[in-house]
Amino acid sequence: MTESTSSSSAPGGPLVNPHARQIVLAHGGGGQLTDELIRDVIRPRLENPWLDPMDDAAILSLPGSRVAITTDSYVVQPLEFPGGDIGRLAVCGTVNDLAACGATTAFISLGLILEEGLEMDALKRILDSAAAAADEAGVRIVTGDTKVVAHGQADGMYINTSGVGEIPANVELGIDLIQPGDVVIVSGEIADHGMAIMLQREQQTILESTLQSDTAPLNGMVESVLQELKDQVVFLRDPTRGGLAGVLSDLAEHSGYHLSVDETKIPVRRETLYAAEMLGLDPLDVANEGKFVFVVRKDVADRTLAILHQHLYGRQAAVIGQFLPQKDGLCELITDVGGRRIIQKPYGEELPRIC
Amino acid sequence: MTESTSSSSAPGGPLVNPHARQIVLAHGGGGQLTDELIRDVIRPRLENPWLDPMDDAAILSLPGSRVAITTDSYVVQPLEFPGGDIGRLAVCGTVNDLAACGATTAFISLGLILEEGLEMDALKRILDSAAAAADEAGVRIVTGDTKVVAHGQADGMYINTSGVGEIPANVELGIDLIQPGDVVIVSGEIADHGMAIMLQREQQTILESTLQSDTAPLNGMVESVLQELKDQVVFLRDPTRGGLAGVLSDLAEHSGYHLSVDETKIPVRRETLYAAEMLGLDPLDVANEGKFVFVVRKDVADRTLAILHQHLYGRQAAVIGQFLPQKDGLCELITDVGGRRIIQKPYGEELPRIC
Repeated sequence: MTESTSSSSAPGGPLVNPHARQIVLAHGGGGQLTDELIRDVIRPRLENPWLDPMDDAAILSLPGSRVAITTDSYVVQPLEFPGGDIGRLAVCGTVNDLAACGATTAFISLGLILEEGLEMDALKRILDSAAAAADEAGVRIVTGDTKVVAHGQADGMYINTSGVGEIPANVELGIDLIQPGDVVIVSGEIADHGMAIMLQREQQTILESTLQSDTAPLNGMVESVLQELKDQVVFLRDPTRGGLAGVLSDLAEHSGYHLSVDETKIPVRRETLYAAEMLGLDPLDVANEGKFVFVVRKDVADRTLAILHQHLYGRQAAVIGQFLPQKDGLCELITDVGGRRIIQKPYGEELPRIC
Repeated sequence: MTESTSSSSAPGGPLVNPHARQIVLAHGGGGQLTDELIRDVIRPRLENPWLDPMDDAAILSLPGSRVAITTDSYVVQPLEFPGGDIGRLAVCGTVNDLAACGATTAFISLGLILEEGLEMDALKRILDSAAAAADEAGVRIVTGDTKVVAHGQADGMYINTSGVGEIPANVELGIDLIQPGDVVIVSGEIADHGMAIMLQREQQTILESTLQSDTAPLNGMVESVLQELKDQVVFLRDPTRGGLAGVLSDLAEHSGYHLSVDETKIPVRRETLYAAEMLGLDPLDVANEGKFVFVVRKDVADRTLAILHQHLYGRQAAVIGQFLPQKDGLCELITDVGGRRIIQKPYGEELPRIC
């Protein structure tokens, strides 16, 4: 440790053990202890040429004229869960929100709200995981902020990630571009994230060995599709809170067309389906953190699938629905027994603190 | 209220009164109730042409090639305090961080973490205040996110604001540009924010009628200085957590030069000084949210002061110190009785949750 951590000489402040194994309030006071936390714990884990934690902001070179900006706070509980943790989730979530705008490279900020008493080792694991996710995505964490609140005022930690990304020329996406005939593709099995969290929380130990969150950065996969087919890709969205049902009902409502979806085509793991049934949930309503919904022109549906199937996170991609000329703004599900029901946006209570 | 709020027909979800006077967990579930909160409470307060809460990101036109990006989470307690509230603070803090990079126009994101039970009226007041601060600053809130956690897992609400701003050509700022002879200017009376919060929290009713937080957007003031004097302005910083002492000790340490500061020149209100003495605090260590530290070439010190004095938030601006050739990296305070002491960065414990 360097000179400034010899706490016995700290002017005015109380004595705080610099090797603390838990977060204490003074880590958030903006003084020496905050500097130490940033220098010894946070910075080494996020090191990259753009990150300068001595400054309150990062300066980037963004020659493109169209820039996407996004923000998300993460309050998931538990902090670590099968298939991921709040750090990986926070990075992937923001990367995916930008990718949904067509911005597949990104600069990300990381805002930490830490609760007094949080285990330092847990913080380190979560930061390592955030850094690994950023590496995997090829994005950079360029600026950050750390606050500490007293025990009982946060639930371990909350993370905000915001992101800025350039949108390549010629990429034009929007619900208003949707036309009858366009098809809807989902990139893989749905509801894994929500169900993994739910089972972990409910300690359904029978199933916890098999179900994992799908938390993943999808910018690479999206880029592969856009590079080849950008004129034919109409809309992108990651079906997180609100699940696939939320995105499909939004697509129908805001395009104004009828969206017909074939339930038998929607990829769902058997374990997920079983677990959802047990808990009285509809997998369509359950959050995903590693899936994308693509709306593409009918002519490129097969080619889109072929590209997705080449990708680690798109192997189970499938065409699940199509827009019809009928202008009722409804999404109709054709069920596996041939029944029909309107897909509605979930009301909101199903799974609190899923992301 | 619109059709989607007729809660008796809500599929699957529990009945939640759409006219709820408090935040409930379902407001954060990403379903209909989240949509309603955004549509009926949040969106009307932040309306501007760039904000489209239906999307997870905003798309901006940023032709400039240098862009500053910043993030800050706000956990201040109480949420409303004399002279401001967490909404005004969150907007001003991020505007000021960008202004410290020379980026005086900005696009801002707003991430809300709301605690179940938060009074809806308090949320509305705070959003109105955030919007008013953005208007005053001439910046736009372009994207947002809302999460809800259970009672006892946040302290009313936390806000993250991140921001992106363009840095004009020719503006070059940095501690490494500091030379002996450069002067340090502070834009007004210090420690008002921290002391106002502290007194409010401690319910020191004798003093609370006079002391107010200085929370203010300073981008306009900074722009006035940069427009006329950009070649002569060396460094900018807002002395928030860690106070003026934190900035001054950083300036000395990272420039490598000796920084001599005249205590008698530092503007402090009499009430602030009195309150700080009562509570055993050094005003130098106490957070500001409406002050800037300018490092400028000696030749333009008077002109900088003249510009600042014209500005609402700079009327008490004063030259408080100068860099000397001695390369010891120390900041020395010449006290009002002619004594000398080294200014050190506060240790961190003094004022938790001040911003």
